Amino acid sequence: MPILEIFSQGEEIVTGQTVDTNAAWLSEQAVQLGFTVTRHTAVGDKLGDLVGLLKEISERADCCLCTGGLGPTSDDLTAEAVAEAFGLPLEFDETAYRQIQTYFSNRQRPMPEVNRKQALLPQGSIRLDNDWGTAPGFALQAGRCWFAFMPGVPSEMRNIFLERVKPLLPDRFVLTPSRLVTIKTLGIGESDIQQRLDGLEIPTSVQIGFRAGIDEVQTKLLFPSGYPEEHITLLTADMAARLGNFVFGIDGLAEEVGNLASVVDQLMMKAGKTLAVVETASQGLLAAKCPGAAWLKSALFEQSMPALSRRFGMPIDENNLSSAGSKLARLLRDQQAADFALVQLYEGGPVQFHDKDRSIILYNTLLTGESCRQSRHNLGGPIGRKQNQAALLGLDLLRRHLQNRQI
Amino acid sequence: MPILEIFSQGEEIVTGQTVDTNAAWLSEQAVQLGFTVTRHTAVGDKLGDLVGLLKEISERADCCLCTGGLGPTSDDLTAEAVAEAFGLPLEFDETAYRQIQTYFSNRQRPMPEVNRKQALLPQGSIRLDNDWGTAPGFALQAGRCWFAFMPGVPSEMRNIFLERVKPLLPDRFVLTPSRLVTIKTLGIGESDIQQRLDGLEIPTSVQIGFRAGIDEVQTKLLFPSGYPEEHITLLTADMAARLGNFVFGIDGLAEEVGNLASVVDQLMMKAGKTLAVVETASQGLLAAKCPGAAWLKSALFEQSMPALSRRFGMPIDENNLSSAGSKLARLLRDQQAADFALVQLYEGGPVQFHDKDRSIILYNTLLTGESCRQSRHNLGGPIGRKQNQAALLGLDLLRRHLQNRQI
Repeated sequence: MPILEIFSQGEEIVTGQTVDTNAAWLSEQAVQLGFTVTRHTAVGDKLGDLVGLLKEISERADCCLCTGGLGPTSDDLTAEAVAEAFGLPLEFDETAYRQIQTYFSNRQRPMPEVNRKQALLPQGSIRLDNDWGTAPGFALQAGRCWFAFMPGVPSEMRNIFLERVKPLLPDRFVLTPSRLVTIKTLGIGESDIQQRLDGLEIPTSVQIGFRAGIDEVQTKLLFPSGYPEEHITLLTADMAARLGNFVFGIDGLAEEVGNLASVVDQLMMKAGKTLAVVETASQGLLAAKCPGAAWLKSALFEQSMPALSRRFGMPIDENNLSSAGSKLARLLRDQQAADFALVQLYEGGPVQFHDKDRSIILYNTLLTGESCRQSRHNLGGPIGRKQNQAALLGLDLLRRHLQNRQI
Repeated sequence: MPILEIFSQGEEIVTGQTVDTNAAWLSEQAVQLGFTVTRHTAVGDKLGDLVGLLKEISERADCCLCTGGLGPTSDDLTAEAVAEAFGLPLEFDETAYRQIQTYFSNRQRPMPEVNRKQALLPQGSIRLDNDWGTAPGFALQAGRCWFAFMPGVPSEMRNIFLERVKPLLPDRFVLTPSRLVTIKTLGIGESDIQQRLDGLEIPTSVQIGFRAGIDEVQTKLLFPSGYPEEHITLLTADMAARLGNFVFGIDGLAEEVGNLASVVDQLMMKAGKTLAVVETASQGLLAAKCPGAAWLKSALFEQSMPALSRRFGMPIDENNLSSAGSKLARLLRDQQAADFALVQLYEGGPVQFHDKDRSIILYNTLLTGESCRQSRHNLGGPIGRKQNQAALLGLDLLRRHLQNRQI
């Protein structure tokens, strides 16, 4: 597979004033097209750094997607750096100049003289017309590498990439798109996953990777182009079986399932049921994860157990939250005339909840029809993590019910 | 000034699955400490790429902050790459091993065997203890460069940088720190801010920048080392005055204020008041933004206006949400025996709420003592943005009351 690098120019990126979202966006596009992306580099506005980097890349990559440094000001140095690095003098491009003039006249503004600089392109380059801003991009071959230079403004960059750069790639590279399958789990850590997969034979041509986020842990399989569909299905099924009920969805087989909340949203819409919720540790976050979900009738957060007890007119035995959860769920469901009721209670007061070194014990109770499902989890870490896990584990209990999975 | 580079390891970064926010955060820290940041590089999990890059950096930078690749799995290669690049064999670190064991035993989970790998550190390196996760970091000198290796999980990385790495820097480098002041606003866009600041004289030695996030818009001022304190205070005050009541906090003068929810949390604790909330468009997110805040007595989300009307036994005139908000706030406050009541209602049904090209009109009502404050905003964009803005604007109404600001 051809090797591709991403290169960003901008003092605001290297000093951390701006997060470089262009690099991630372009990488994702490139991987899907069938490139191997090996490196991202960002440098500031020092000409020497730029020249050095361009030369390095021209020797080790087949393609480089570059953003930034095409503006009119003195710290926009990309074209100059290209000229110096590859001995290609800048030439005045009549068409580019007219386009820049048109951009300003369309906005009824005079064209500042500094913008003339943007019409200077390295000798022998192809102009990438910019219908979305002032600076045209340009592309050229230097050494081993074909470079495409685009503006750093994300909206302009995306348009120029999709409309100008992408169509040029199939003629220049032999591209065989690879296939990414992602198994998404909740409630099991990266190292436990690794142990469950131990001994499973994974062909060396398949790349396996893990990503532990705050909302899910992903096991990723990258299959090379042309890998037989049935083997993709089989290997994925084998792995998913080993991870069992922790798997809430798989991306890259038939469709993209999204995150846990999207999975639950789709299941609830399909089931045609409604839900009422009482939140404690998650403090509104369970409801907040499902914006605009019509099946969510109501969600109530109460700060204290006595207040919750008063609201439902029911004593709560703090030493038996499992039983209290069941009773509350019945009251909640009746009061709200919902199909399902989900009640979240936890053991451990505010001190345990706030302290990152102490845990709380979370009880989720889901009442559906006449049966109750309950789950019990130890939650540790900073308060934000406990809150988020509480919200996710509540949604996951609902997901397991709707998918007929064990707790 | 010493030259610093940022290096990130992770296939999820080079393939664009994750945006590398660590690099921007670390750069900002480094610039403030007095380093010149020249380059960011991200590479995936190919050992050869890693080894080559580490060698390059060891020849051209004085300091390198590295993230990622310290996990327990087979694609976590940083320690191995360091060992190979600099000829420093990995050694088993007894203390690191005990810390990893403790991490698991605190969570009442058995330590998987794969995690043992995280206790292997390159010969001669300093261990950077990780009290926030499993993997310790490490630091070492190689060639011209002092390297600090930290985990890629942002919360762990930030803690390790602030608590372990930052204290080591003054002994190793001659640093002249610059000073960053950040004015934080809500409800005003970047171009409106620029217009309000138009004509204000900013000395050329002061760098100004803007960052528009989903939760706030930041105006950043970077003052060079030795810039007189009184001039910093004056210029900041001038700018804040021009931005008026939109400013909810300023970082970098006396203390760090945090985000809007932290500002409100501090103000509410100081005021010693309690709050009850009814959420609609924000759907639990307002409460969720204040985890563990003892002043938040309760928060209720109702899907439909009729359900809300039934719950409070009060008709709601959907053509006069301003009046309905006031009445509901009174009922809510009495019912909950809270000092303050905040009620959020909106005009525009589910269709407008879901459609990114249509807006809803948000009414926030805050009842304090006998007086009501109300705000009214047009919210557009995707549903998640509407939800988030609704939560923030509710909190901001509370902030303006507590700071005696106009609406």
